[in-house]
Amino acid sequence: MLDTKYSQYIQHRIDQKTKPLGALGLLENVAHQLALIQSQGKEAAVEHIELNKPSIIIFAGDHGIADEGVSIAPSAVTQQMVLNFLQGGAAINCFCTVNDIDITVVDTGILLPVESDSPMLISQRLGTRTNNFANEAAMSLETVERGIELGTELVSRTISNGTNIIMFGEMGIGNTSSASAILSALANRAASECVGLGTGINSEQLERKKAVVEQGVARCKGLELKEVKELKDIKEVLAQVGGYEIVQMVGGFLGAYQTKTPVLVDGFIVSVAAYVATLIEPNCRDYMIFAHRSEESGHQIVLELLAAEPLLDLGLRLGEGTGAALAMPIIRAAAEFYNNMASFESAGVTV
Amino acid sequence: MLDTKYSQYIQHRIDQKTKPLGALGLLENVAHQLALIQSQGKEAAVEHIELNKPSIIIFAGDHGIADEGVSIAPSAVTQQMVLNFLQGGAAINCFCTVNDIDITVVDTGILLPVESDSPMLISQRLGTRTNNFANEAAMSLETVERGIELGTELVSRTISNGTNIIMFGEMGIGNTSSASAILSALANRAASECVGLGTGINSEQLERKKAVVEQGVARCKGLELKEVKELKDIKEVLAQVGGYEIVQMVGGFLGAYQTKTPVLVDGFIVSVAAYVATLIEPNCRDYMIFAHRSEESGHQIVLELLAAEPLLDLGLRLGEGTGAALAMPIIRAAAEFYNNMASFESAGVTV
Repeated sequence: MLDTKYSQYIQHRIDQKTKPLGALGLLENVAHQLALIQSQGKEAAVEHIELNKPSIIIFAGDHGIADEGVSIAPSAVTQQMVLNFLQGGAAINCFCTVNDIDITVVDTGILLPVESDSPMLISQRLGTRTNNFANEAAMSLETVERGIELGTELVSRTISNGTNIIMFGEMGIGNTSSASAILSALANRAASECVGLGTGINSEQLERKKAVVEQGVARCKGLELKEVKELKDIKEVLAQVGGYEIVQMVGGFLGAYQTKTPVLVDGFIVSVAAYVATLIEPNCRDYMIFAHRSEESGHQIVLELLAAEPLLDLGLRLGEGTGAALAMPIIRAAAEFYNNMASFESAGVTV
Repeated sequence: MLDTKYSQYIQHRIDQKTKPLGALGLLENVAHQLALIQSQGKEAAVEHIELNKPSIIIFAGDHGIADEGVSIAPSAVTQQMVLNFLQGGAAINCFCTVNDIDITVVDTGILLPVESDSPMLISQRLGTRTNNFANEAAMSLETVERGIELGTELVSRTISNGTNIIMFGEMGIGNTSSASAILSALANRAASECVGLGTGINSEQLERKKAVVEQGVARCKGLELKEVKELKDIKEVLAQVGGYEIVQMVGGFLGAYQTKTPVLVDGFIVSVAAYVATLIEPNCRDYMIFAHRSEESGHQIVLELLAAEPLLDLGLRLGEGTGAALAMPIIRAAAEFYNNMASFESAGVTV
């Protein structure tokens, strides 16, 4: 848990800025959280929030469940979009360009590996693609463990290279089905509540998606998941209905926690990974800042479970980490006002 | 009215980007609007949205109504905050620094003029401060006309200097009272609906504020304001209950319209000025992009009247143009995806 001994000082510093109390709304929460994180283990609260080399890691993986026709696009599109990322042509590239964010793309197991010597690309393949979780476990327990490890290590390396604020994005045809199933199993909510339209399926596909998610979740019922989940049961759910990119993101959140690094959390799929990480290590939550309220219905459930109030609500339903990248300027604005805005005293403004 | 002959082409261009249809939500609307504005009078729709020297003009003015105790701070604070702007210490300075926005501060009539040779400062004083509109007209009709003219001219000069996207901010103790009264009179809504907590008054002050706004609005009742307002009646309302900074902003919106320049509209007070401008020239609306949904209750009314859906909802209640400045990165992101995101064809992604 974060040591809150500097909270009062930090809030006082915010309250002394030349503005009515609380008038900067959510930016005040962000500044407080960042200042508190960066004050951990220090002899005094920080007067200056540092934001160094903001970086996004996009985890791409393919899903056997895509064979069930639960998406608007075929699995081949995952690879095509990875190439698009590497060539700078996707929405996330545009948003990272304007907001000065570094991009890394991770192949966690897409159907067809890409041939590229791009320095942006990292291969951490856990397989060719997951098994179709409608009928069998998506992956083995060993694969889950290996995936979490790889995600954690990658974040550690990124932090070692000078980044101190991180984002995760994802790409994987079929991955809202996997995220919905994980959520349904772990939060003990009906599959129908957790399943949404993804990138835009029709009502027939939606019914099919609910049915196959239900099938996958049914195999997790034997786990007798209690209020406090045991690690082995969490891993079992990931093995049954997870995705390669999702397990690596779970590891990523654990890595952020271990390195005391704030994470700007994107939409539905990334939030489900965040939720899983908090079940493994509840203190992970302290380092999360929620970026965007997704249109995906299951996202509301995750946000409630994590008591999260996202910064943005722009009607995005794309993934890739686009919501997180678009929220980065708000993080910078929050840091800037904490660092450089005048106080009533310094500006000679009547309180 | 905007010529919409290029709308279909622009939408097609957006729809061909490597993303599901509509998946970039509000950013798609912004890109469409900017591309359409910049295509006016051209021989073909623009392929590239240009954003040059984004600039904010902060209009500061004082209000006689402040004598009624309707604010948390005395009128002297308006001048103190103007000095704070000039010294770079306010929230708006911080947000303009991180988002690369030029700032101009206009003294439209603050109680005590500042002594400063800052190049940021422009003096367009319409008086010392307005009269207390609880008891008498805030200003003369001639002053209203002069204010509108000055605002229009200032925007024209700003555009001539190379800016092609503009924002307005405001500072003036008592100005939510004035904005509420203008809205109540022109939209024919009860004063109590249009009055809110401003920067944070208590419930006793709120009752007082409702009462004095009601008094000012009562003097406008004789105007028999119809569905379509006559210019002389609109000006009369501004004379009765307006503010110097508000009339100059009304002129500013008209100037943006005349120069075909998009305006990023801040919170309640700026939105009321925007609403007044649309009553004078309905086509003004085409150039407005709404930045932030204010906590101020009257803002919901204005947004409905203008059929506006703001980009952000960060719980700000500060004014200064802070909501607009924080939305600028979203405008840049929208332009960037329109300009540089790959199409399905160019990226070789399966439709």
